Amino acid sequence: MTLDDLSEHLARWLDGSGEESGLVVSSRIRLARNLRQIPFTSRASEEDRGRVVEAVKEATHACRGLSEAVFMEADKLSEMDRQLLVERHLISPALAGGEGRRGILVNRGETFSIMVNEEDHLRLQAILSGFQPRQAYALASGVDGDLAKALPYAYSSRWGHLTACPTNVGTGLRASVLIHLPGLVLIQDMEKVLRGITQMGFAVRGFYGEGTDVVGNLFQISNQITLGKREMQIVEELEKVTRQIITYEQNARQTLLKEARPQIEDKIWRAYGILENARVLTTQEFMNLSSAARLGHSLGVIPRPGVRALNELMVRTQPSHIQRSAGKVLEPVERDVLRADIVRKWLEEKRN
Amino acid sequence: MTLDDLSEHLARWLDGSGEESGLVVSSRIRLARNLRQIPFTSRASEEDRGRVVEAVKEATHACRGLSEAVFMEADKLSEMDRQLLVERHLISPALAGGEGRRGILVNRGETFSIMVNEEDHLRLQAILSGFQPRQAYALASGVDGDLAKALPYAYSSRWGHLTACPTNVGTGLRASVLIHLPGLVLIQDMEKVLRGITQMGFAVRGFYGEGTDVVGNLFQISNQITLGKREMQIVEELEKVTRQIITYEQNARQTLLKEARPQIEDKIWRAYGILENARVLTTQEFMNLSSAARLGHSLGVIPRPGVRALNELMVRTQPSHIQRSAGKVLEPVERDVLRADIVRKWLEEKRN
Repeated sequence: MTLDDLSEHLARWLDGSGEESGLVVSSRIRLARNLRQIPFTSRASEEDRGRVVEAVKEATHACRGLSEAVFMEADKLSEMDRQLLVERHLISPALAGGEGRRGILVNRGETFSIMVNEEDHLRLQAILSGFQPRQAYALASGVDGDLAKALPYAYSSRWGHLTACPTNVGTGLRASVLIHLPGLVLIQDMEKVLRGITQMGFAVRGFYGEGTDVVGNLFQISNQITLGKREMQIVEELEKVTRQIITYEQNARQTLLKEARPQIEDKIWRAYGILENARVLTTQEFMNLSSAARLGHSLGVIPRPGVRALNELMVRTQPSHIQRSAGKVLEPVERDVLRADIVRKWLEEKRN
Repeated sequence: MTLDDLSEHLARWLDGSGEESGLVVSSRIRLARNLRQIPFTSRASEEDRGRVVEAVKEATHACRGLSEAVFMEADKLSEMDRQLLVERHLISPALAGGEGRRGILVNRGETFSIMVNEEDHLRLQAILSGFQPRQAYALASGVDGDLAKALPYAYSSRWGHLTACPTNVGTGLRASVLIHLPGLVLIQDMEKVLRGITQMGFAVRGFYGEGTDVVGNLFQISNQITLGKREMQIVEELEKVTRQIITYEQNARQTLLKEARPQIEDKIWRAYGILENARVLTTQEFMNLSSAARLGHSLGVIPRPGVRALNELMVRTQPSHIQRSAGKVLEPVERDVLRADIVRKWLEEKRN
């Protein structure tokens, strides 16, 4: 499997399957792990980094489900290709922008990956379509158990897993959902809900995780506390808060339909009309329009595009994906023209 | 023929026929005439007004082409119906808002009409689709000649036709074209062109004539001088200045396509997408979107809607037309919903 394979196929976590996939785009589990007797990445020598990379490659060979996984050395990829991996939610902006030996191991379908030499030596990630944090946890935990047998994890019987940043100590687990909340945004209740979520010990982040902006009304909700709880407990708490948010969002949508149905339907149909017809489209605008289309599909206002098509377009219309499909670096306005082409042709195909 | 007939049929001057109909919506000739020995309308008694009405009704019976014309008494129409006549460009806002006996005589097809007891006793109007000022003049002039035999026109051998306002004395003729100039507006050359037009003795007005706004980049160009020229000379001068403006507009469009083709095509396709999909649409927005669609059709960017469909929608989506088709007075937001419905269904029909 190469980067070309990746960029031409749909990541399985975008296929629109799973519970509540009209609202919850994806469920993700991340486990932070480090290797004993090797300094944390920020203090590791290039030799140390190399040892981590080799140890991970070696250990994963033996893991269930990872026999076909490939390891890509981020330091050998172009800037554009690293951005492509960020756009696929496989690596963080921090890993893309980092230095030294580092990389990403990823399975076919991109449901499981390991970032190597990001903030921690290992960042295991399981990501599934829809509302499936429990299943994602099972996937991550399975690999984690296998790796624990092969790799000397930095683990304290008192503190649990040791991590570069104290906020991750203990379970090293971050469970998150990427959830679409246009209703709460439209009725201007999002701030209130965000306060509630924060008070319950959850963080709200943007589309690409920590430090990134919210685009297209997509919010990433994740646990803040990793210490003093069992892993499964964290997952269950995320499930609980997510179900609560889903209820709020559904109520917000009912309120909107009751009080402003023509305006909401208008917003949805216009977005659809622009997606089908625009000749120039920025990423930002695409995300906003696709938010309206996603809402429209979910409410049954428009029959298409469906969740899968919107998810796939969400990734395919990102700048590096567009440039890779064009086979060259493009000016922003050229990308905007190509983005509009891709969206239009995609919707046309799905229509016929 | 009743108001219902009118509102359900397309006025012939909107059928998209005639030269340059991609740019010139319509050509119009107006002749101001008054009756001798009756005070001008503003000073006329109700009895005087009645005499004018009766004289016109009587005289037109004998006119070629007016045997099927009907006379509608504006003072017996509802406010909404008077507005409907304004929207069809048959009466002026001044006649609609006036007082006392007054009205409109109109032929089938609405190519010829006479406003009675507006500023002048008679305002003859001939209006044809596309760039046909000469043909419109022939039509108006033919009826004028017939009427002159039956009615005692207020005419001075020195000054020509006498009119209520000195600016109309002489020929009483206003020749105008309704022309679509989105290219000049987009390249921001309109002001320069307007200055030039004004210097050549022509006035630029809005969609409904004097004192109304320009909407949808539709400008009404007309002569300012009515005295000291032969009627045909005025018509020829309008033809000449219009041909000049058409050249400027075509050059502006070429400049736009050369320098910003993707942005122009984007603007056109988005307008088309919104027209086809919106569920709420104000008159103002419809006029702006239809301007982009008109440009798009004229440039060959979009195959439809054509000139005829856009012209027809331009009238059918006006507030009073919508309310009449709904059979009741509507709130603005209800009208906006109905307007979007009408446009959508219209475009759908034309598509199939």
